Amino acid sequence: MAGSNFGNLFTITTWGESHGKALGVVVDGCPAGLLLSPADIQPYLNRRKPGMSKYTTPRKESDQVEILSGTFEGVTTGTPISLIVFNTDERSHDYSNIKDIYRPGHADFTYQEKYGLRDYRGGGRSSGRETIGRVAAGAIAWKLLQELGIRPLTYTKAIGPISVSPERFDATAISRTPLLMPDSEAAAKATAYLDECLKQHDSAGGIIECVVTGIPVGLGSPVFDKLDAQLAKAVLSIGSVKGVEFGTGFHAATVRGSENNDRFTPTGKETNHAGGVLGGISDGSELVLRAAIKPTPSISQPQRTITATGEATTVQIAGRHDPVIVPRAVVVVEAMVGLTLVDALLQNCSSKLDNLKKIYE
Amino acid sequence: MAGSNFGNLFTITTWGESHGKALGVVVDGCPAGLLLSPADIQPYLNRRKPGMSKYTTPRKESDQVEILSGTFEGVTTGTPISLIVFNTDERSHDYSNIKDIYRPGHADFTYQEKYGLRDYRGGGRSSGRETIGRVAAGAIAWKLLQELGIRPLTYTKAIGPISVSPERFDATAISRTPLLMPDSEAAAKATAYLDECLKQHDSAGGIIECVVTGIPVGLGSPVFDKLDAQLAKAVLSIGSVKGVEFGTGFHAATVRGSENNDRFTPTGKETNHAGGVLGGISDGSELVLRAAIKPTPSISQPQRTITATGEATTVQIAGRHDPVIVPRAVVVVEAMVGLTLVDALLQNCSSKLDNLKKIYE
Amino acid sequence: MAGSNFGNLFTITTWGESHGKALGVVVDGCPAGLLLSPADIQPYLNRRKPGMSKYTTPRKESDQVEILSGTFEGVTTGTPISLIVFNTDERSHDYSNIKDIYRPGHADFTYQEKYGLRDYRGGGRSSGRETIGRVAAGAIAWKLLQELGIRPLTYTKAIGPISVSPERFDATAISRTPLLMPDSEAAAKATAYLDECLKQHDSAGGIIECVVTGIPVGLGSPVFDKLDAQLAKAVLSIGSVKGVEFGTGFHAATVRGSENNDRFTPTGKETNHAGGVLGGISDGSELVLRAAIKPTPSISQPQRTITATGEATTVQIAGRHDPVIVPRAVVVVEAMVGLTLVDALLQNCSSKLDNLKKIYE
Amino acid sequence: MAGSNFGNLFTITTWGESHGKALGVVVDGCPAGLLLSPADIQPYLNRRKPGMSKYTTPRKESDQVEILSGTFEGVTTGTPISLIVFNTDERSHDYSNIKDIYRPGHADFTYQEKYGLRDYRGGGRSSGRETIGRVAAGAIAWKLLQELGIRPLTYTKAIGPISVSPERFDATAISRTPLLMPDSEAAAKATAYLDECLKQHDSAGGIIECVVTGIPVGLGSPVFDKLDAQLAKAVLSIGSVKGVEFGTGFHAATVRGSENNDRFTPTGKETNHAGGVLGGISDGSELVLRAAIKPTPSISQPQRTITATGEATTVQIAGRHDPVIVPRAVVVVEAMVGLTLVDALLQNCSSKLDNLKKIYE
Repeated sequence: MAGSNFGNLFTITTWGESHGKALGVVVDGCPAGLLLSPADIQPYLNRRKPGMSKYTTPRKESDQVEILSGTFEGVTTGTPISLIVFNTDERSHDYSNIKDIYRPGHADFTYQEKYGLRDYRGGGRSSGRETIGRVAAGAIAWKLLQELGIRPLTYTKAIGPISVSPERFDATAISRTPLLMPDSEAAAKATAYLDECLKQHDSAGGIIECVVTGIPVGLGSPVFDKLDAQLAKAVLSIGSVKGVEFGTGFHAATVRGSENNDRFTPTGKETNHAGGVLGGISDGSELVLRAAIKPTPSISQPQRTITATGEATTVQIAGRHDPVIVPRAVVVVEAMVGLTLVDALLQNCSSKLDNLKKIYE
Repeated sequence: MAGSNFGNLFTITTWGESHGKALGVVVDGCPAGLLLSPADIQPYLNRRKPGMSKYTTPRKESDQVEILSGTFEGVTTGTPISLIVFNTDERSHDYSNIKDIYRPGHADFTYQEKYGLRDYRGGGRSSGRETIGRVAAGAIAWKLLQELGIRPLTYTKAIGPISVSPERFDATAISRTPLLMPDSEAAAKATAYLDECLKQHDSAGGIIECVVTGIPVGLGSPVFDKLDAQLAKAVLSIGSVKGVEFGTGFHAATVRGSENNDRFTPTGKETNHAGGVLGGISDGSELVLRAAIKPTPSISQPQRTITATGEATTVQIAGRHDPVIVPRAVVVVEAMVGLTLVDALLQNCSSKLDNLKKIYE
Repeated sequence: MAGSNFGNLFTITTWGESHGKALGVVVDGCPAGLLLSPADIQPYLNRRKPGMSKYTTPRKESDQVEILSGTFEGVTTGTPISLIVFNTDERSHDYSNIKDIYRPGHADFTYQEKYGLRDYRGGGRSSGRETIGRVAAGAIAWKLLQELGIRPLTYTKAIGPISVSPERFDATAISRTPLLMPDSEAAAKATAYLDECLKQHDSAGGIIECVVTGIPVGLGSPVFDKLDAQLAKAVLSIGSVKGVEFGTGFHAATVRGSENNDRFTPTGKETNHAGGVLGGISDGSELVLRAAIKPTPSISQPQRTITATGEATTVQIAGRHDPVIVPRAVVVVEAMVGLTLVDALLQNCSSKLDNLKKIYE
Repeated sequence: MAGSNFGNLFTITTWGESHGKALGVVVDGCPAGLLLSPADIQPYLNRRKPGMSKYTTPRKESDQVEILSGTFEGVTTGTPISLIVFNTDERSHDYSNIKDIYRPGHADFTYQEKYGLRDYRGGGRSSGRETIGRVAAGAIAWKLLQELGIRPLTYTKAIGPISVSPERFDATAISRTPLLMPDSEAAAKATAYLDECLKQHDSAGGIIECVVTGIPVGLGSPVFDKLDAQLAKAVLSIGSVKGVEFGTGFHAATVRGSENNDRFTPTGKETNHAGGVLGGISDGSELVLRAAIKPTPSISQPQRTITATGEATTVQIAGRHDPVIVPRAVVVVEAMVGLTLVDALLQNCSSKLDNLKKIYE
């Protein structure tokens, strides 16, 4: 596969650049018989849209999705679902100043070296707008998963050094602030922190947590395609993600087996340090994963860098940039988790002869 | 793919259970013309062998590799390389007591549910012995990578709460202790910590770091198959790994853009917070990744659990188990990194028309 | 893969139904640096367009291709190339009469059974319009192949029982008739044959031959991915193709080894009975393959069939249908051959260590 | 994939050379719960064994299969099944005379050019012994398919110019001659024909037909992964196959639509010209395919050829060679068909939402 393709049975292929005519995704392998309309997809795209607060870029983009194929009379037909979002914002002249300069923390340099040329307008394919296709496809994945009782809760766990407190965890708070934190007190502190970043022409990163309930036991395969391994790839394939962990994650490295082991009881596991995966296979408890997001590399401070011909220079990135992308990335993480789960769900159908007999006899 | 297969162009397929007749791997897609003998592979297997210290299981296993196909007169021919390691240790009766009990922290429960049955002897396919095929294949990957000047350094970064100090970092110390830590002082503390664990019938986890030099710019592909995403999957597919991070990793989430951005200079990047990957593509600086390993779940304390029929019981795991698997997993992490890199290297051959012309004109 | 995806390194994903809003294809893995504009693609689409003669359907479809992504300033960037063709023909009411009837020779029945529903308008995804994406992608493949000196000649070898005579073979005749036969005498006879078919409300099939020159030795891989095996899949994936053969093909089954073996000489093979492939690998001589196309199943005679609920009935297919699709399928065969070859070309880049050294040293 | 791997969900990876230590296959993705022992596999290997008549090579090879992994107490566990057959025949000195000569009709030349070197002993990987892995894996596929009522009948349809007569077709005759022809009269003629070939130091080809009953409607996917397209690749990946066709095949190109269309009736199709596949999807009737096999290229007549350095020379192939491989290839075709069908069967499990509900609710 050439790299813009994700999944084995429920596969998606995304395409499009920041300043091209459109961006989109082709979803292949979606089972037939799922009710699907743009109204199922648009809310996910709205969650990643910029312009929702002062902490995200003020560009106005409608990002309206159209379904071009794969449904008939509002139901999926089993054929590829092509989704498209046209670029409507006018932005032809904004980026020419970075044509011959490599921005620190961006992919300008590596694209140029790998391919010998690049679409420098707005980052081209390395732009955050690339995630439009992922999110649109993720909406379909979650529609399907929810038919089977599988449900996500994804939120901002930390902004810079400000973390949500487990004691104050309040799911209802998530939608009450543009930062999507399940802790109003942390959200207030994070807001102040971001105001300070803005004032200093600086940016912040953070941590996103995704918790999924209702996953049946058995998803994932034992060796290279462990469920957590596939999720790790899915989440780390999102730009700016620098790490991923499951359950207690890196903390697990510091404790003892007697503390970390989740004891089984007749009514389920006593604890869930594992984060819902044992031996690479879902164990029926909540899936818990976290992704670390680096601070937005586009800052309007002057930064040392080099030109395409290797000479030292300084770049000061103007224009519209999010001082933090974490809240907008929440739905992207959720999308990638959904896409991974639905693929694992389809693959697991043939794990036992008994399943085949249910279908073919 | 059914889950025991890794890679796109340089692919490996592993097979074998802990207590089966043998374990092995088929490496397909290795370029022709590479000198290869068992002597290139055996040292990697020796690095993962148990019995090297009191902190690893005292089983004696020779784990001698044989090359069954794919080479001719000591050179790879481009055809699949089949490697086999026969199980020689006698261990038929050790595990029957866990036949009907789910060990906490192990994959017994999830395998049983997914497949409806399992080979319970020594964990079967979920045993650490499954990594023999990975390590053997990884040796071939590294032989090839080293032909092109790409070299790894992999070591124990932390055992439980004891971490290597960056100030005392000393690569020569790695091979001086069985714990493979590049810091003799930390190694001494970790040794004491493990003695304490052993005394309490408990176990420890830790962190493994892998640093690779000499990677050309351009490996990895921009969207789903980002180099770091593929490495994350590779490393998280190793049993007991609960998290992975690149460069400054989770710490990057807490700092500001002005601190995290690596400035370009005419002679390279000023810093390497990114860990060698920008936009999913290798940037020519050192690749730096870390994996978090949970404490060994097999501990000889009594633990609450359930039987296969769901009744509460207690299990006390006897037999031979590593109180810490981190040092043995070092070479497994290195193998998975090598396999990922060599695959990316092969895939990148066709990134530009100019490359095709070099080969076909 | 879910079935609308073709290729390993140069991959295409097609989407779209006959009566949807649009059809298209995403080409991923095209090397960067190839000059590409719609003018490179449109001529291929024009070759498959209907309405070019009385033997093909008189529908007027503009089938204008747009490039939505993947190029910058007229050059491929290595990112996915999204191509789209909007459906402009008005045809909403034509097909409702076949909603509940299974047309003989069509996929109505099998789609309905597989998916539980289908887009019955014009065949939906099983329509010949599905090939638009293949042909558009094939144009890119051939642009790339021609950069390396690889060139196709594809034509109608037979229409019904009328075959091109090897003695009268004349490549310049191909474009002189709408039937694309390299033999004017055979073309005249085939024209008369088709007139007779039309008069009897019947249809004809035929044979397409594709000959490719300039293929380097070494494409294809020895076992399951033999070049001819991959080509066979590619060509048989085109609707209505019922057989494929290479070189002397089925005739080879009837002769002796002493006759069939192509002797090597210092200047090449004496003969090319093999059709350019030995042991699944291109041998440097012309690739020669033929595809058998069944007669168009849509005929306006009354035919016995059943309804969706299994009752006997009669169907008489009105509307616009090609009495022969062979000439329009010529470019589809050529496209699939090109896509297979370019993928094999990219994969072969890493067959030897020496090739890697050419690129990385 | 690197070319020694076949299938998407039920995948096989074969390895091994004619004169290596062993040959084998890893089957990954076989559902758990299938009874399996070497006694299920050995009969298939025996069907491809040489030495069964004077028309096949008199080498004595035991070709005994061992199961090295993937079963526990005689049942598949869902983990990879590794099968091995050791090479026991002593044959070290037979082939050195062809080290520097390219045999006409063989893959010597193309392997050497592709890889820069080759294992010339007995053809190495291009030897017919490569099919051992396919046949062993095919036996598992058929064991599974037969659990679901799917059954094959495969036989020799023609030897050289001698064809089975449809009027005299007699399935019971197949096992009565070593030629596996379902027509005793044709078998007698073919025997005489082969005697003549032997006398003239020449060889013959032929046609193999495979008919499968009990396939459920719905296998295969509509576009690139049509069931017939996948079968074509599977069958053409067998060495010496030069063409494949379905149902009436190439003959369909010569008839009219009114003749070729299979009318539906309430009790099934009136005819089966399509050979069991409509629109790339199985239609519930018999699958019928034929493969054309070229005459064995190894003949003991002197033949013109070239040396590895390009000089003209003559080769006379001594040693043990089949004057016809068709009867031995019958089981190989059957194996490849079975492997394709089982993979399609597993993939079809997730074609509709209703199927998922059967499994997960």
